[in-house]
Amino acid sequence: MEFISGGVCAAKGFTANGIHCGIRKNPEKRDLALVYSEKRAAAAAVYTTNKVKGATLLVTRRHLADGCAQAIVCNSGNANTGNHNGPQVAEGMAALAARAMGIEPADMVVASTGVIGLPMDLAPIEAGMPALAAGLSRDGGDFAAQAIMTTDTVPKQAAVRFEVGGVPCRLGGMAKGSGMIHPNMATMLVFLTTDCAISPVMLQKALSENVKRTFNMLSVDGDTSTNDTVCVLANAMAQNPPVKTEGPDFDAFSRALDAVMVQLCRAIAADGEGASKLLECRVTGAKDEHAARLAAKSVICSSLVKSAMFGADANWGRVLCAVGYSGIQADLDHIDIVFSSRAGDILLCRDGTGVDFSEEEAKKILSEDEIDILITLRDGDGAATAWGCDLTYDYVHINGDYRT
Amino acid sequence: MEFISGGVCAAKGFTANGIHCGIRKNPEKRDLALVYSEKRAAAAAVYTTNKVKGATLLVTRRHLADGCAQAIVCNSGNANTGNHNGPQVAEGMAALAARAMGIEPADMVVASTGVIGLPMDLAPIEAGMPALAAGLSRDGGDFAAQAIMTTDTVPKQAAVRFEVGGVPCRLGGMAKGSGMIHPNMATMLVFLTTDCAISPVMLQKALSENVKRTFNMLSVDGDTSTNDTVCVLANAMAQNPPVKTEGPDFDAFSRALDAVMVQLCRAIAADGEGASKLLECRVTGAKDEHAARLAAKSVICSSLVKSAMFGADANWGRVLCAVGYSGIQADLDHIDIVFSSRAGDILLCRDGTGVDFSEEEAKKILSEDEIDILITLRDGDGAATAWGCDLTYDYVHINGDYRT
Repeated sequence: MEFISGGVCAAKGFTANGIHCGIRKNPEKRDLALVYSEKRAAAAAVYTTNKVKGATLLVTRRHLADGCAQAIVCNSGNANTGNHNGPQVAEGMAALAARAMGIEPADMVVASTGVIGLPMDLAPIEAGMPALAAGLSRDGGDFAAQAIMTTDTVPKQAAVRFEVGGVPCRLGGMAKGSGMIHPNMATMLVFLTTDCAISPVMLQKALSENVKRTFNMLSVDGDTSTNDTVCVLANAMAQNPPVKTEGPDFDAFSRALDAVMVQLCRAIAADGEGASKLLECRVTGAKDEHAARLAAKSVICSSLVKSAMFGADANWGRVLCAVGYSGIQADLDHIDIVFSSRAGDILLCRDGTGVDFSEEEAKKILSEDEIDILITLRDGDGAATAWGCDLTYDYVHINGDYRT
Repeated sequence: MEFISGGVCAAKGFTANGIHCGIRKNPEKRDLALVYSEKRAAAAAVYTTNKVKGATLLVTRRHLADGCAQAIVCNSGNANTGNHNGPQVAEGMAALAARAMGIEPADMVVASTGVIGLPMDLAPIEAGMPALAAGLSRDGGDFAAQAIMTTDTVPKQAAVRFEVGGVPCRLGGMAKGSGMIHPNMATMLVFLTTDCAISPVMLQKALSENVKRTFNMLSVDGDTSTNDTVCVLANAMAQNPPVKTEGPDFDAFSRALDAVMVQLCRAIAADGEGASKLLECRVTGAKDEHAARLAAKSVICSSLVKSAMFGADANWGRVLCAVGYSGIQADLDHIDIVFSSRAGDILLCRDGTGVDFSEEEAKKILSEDEIDILITLRDGDGAATAWGCDLTYDYVHINGDYRT
């Protein structure tokens, strides 16, 4: 397996585009994305667990009930949630996009991201659709990734080449997400495309297992969005022997999915609202994987740990505290804590007790823009990784005045 | 019942003091507090649920096993947690204080707050104890409340006068807490004193029930401390008919406890690290009280809601989102959301859908320093209140460099 370029257009048969149609006021900001597969594709998705769900999620879920889809349309600037006309607008977006490409509306994945509670107008989408569809191309992945951004500062794409049954396949994706990021089943918006031949059932299984290890271990601010969606389309154009059961081929596909998802996870965490640092917390030696996940996510979510990382302050007691309230049943008399970055690593706590360390050395390590927090529990074989970012002045600035 | 002054010295027979003994570097900051009851008192306490527990908690819990205590000693500047000599220092503090007052060490409540993971030295406590004990007075509540402060900007005290069986009683308390505030069974440190005669069993019952409605509904930053303790001493010097069972007298005591605890809760929230605003979220019409608590606490904990309040931005969609992920089972098609302050109130969402409102009017209401977020669910009779504060630049500033 190797990383390649191309994002959602890395796999055979996929084209994409993104334009400014007028949902957002700034004419420089693209706000409408389209991803199209030449062939109707197997499709799987996971959605937010928030009881409030964006109107587009309900439409997409209905459209994917048959395990197939052929294209994705997504706008930024308005979440199409908590307004009176949400379902009509979501169906309208799907119908307009389907007509422009000559496919069935029921084969459309539809998604929205932006402010909650604003009425949404279909007119700019209708006006922009012909140009959006006409501009679909193999090079359009960048434009599509830009068009789904809100407070993101960079577009997020990843892709890999891998083999199934000796046949080369590709899997790529794009993601958006910077605030309201604390996925539980899924994150803001992640769209993946692959030319691997895989049945809808196995595609859903790979995705559902994967999000537990990847996007559900990601937190920027503890707020689970109303619109979180991870969706993958598999159009079979690689002509590999189709993956229909568990086994080595399924595992190869899962590894490819994992590689792309982890890359997108890290990209979202690093671009968290106001973030200056990517934080990765790796827990080993937990009783089981569940305990490791609880501990890692608790550390990544701690406002006090996040603030300390912003200040490059080696306040490891806050890490100990966050493991303590994570809900795990463990003897924390044997916990070790290490901070690590490309500048080196430093042991701060052994067997639950602070050790002498050089403040100067610690400061140097924590001044890098990627920090690893390594925790060993000596309680079993469970391991897990979680991703997040520091809490900065800019987070407060961005969210103190996002809407107005 | 009426509010009175005096804090932990408001009740008969209690004296207090607070001094600088040298645990903290700044000689202007008091760092050692003592509260003493003339008569041995019934005692009850609740503690943090964090798996990592400060050494003082374990000592206090052992000392209170008989339901009685006579004095409280507490230092700030060092949490006496995650170091190698914690239990010895905690026992040492208790022994030094007991000797100075001529009481049994087993009748001492002992507590610590400050940085986690630093070795703690008993020498300054030993040196300061004679002066601390000699200075105990009826007017010493202020000094004691100051001596337990860490990043708090103001001391926090409250007291009430109430009647039990026609006899006037008093109940007062002090609290500290500004960061690492997300109590689960208790908050950072709250010490209450009363001259009401009440059995240890009923005292514990009143306290345990009360914290669910008060301190467990308080969050500054989502981090549950290792040292949270709420402790109450009842010395019976009011000579009321002793409260030994449930009934009108127990209810009168509970109401007094509730009044003081809510006051201290609000004081802690308003003085949350970096806070510029006290937030109170009141949920009504929930299926039951549990659902109401989940919803209210979820809103109060949302970083996005907290940031919006800092910016006086009427982003009610974030409130809807936080109720949605709170874990309640409810039909959110009937939710109403109102923001309220002394400048007025404004309806933003009716039946789950945004309504037209004046941005100017909303800004005026949200520019006050006490904001109420009122949520109606139309799902039953459950109601609950939660307290918190806004998320500001200063929170990040304080916690980016607290330790060094």
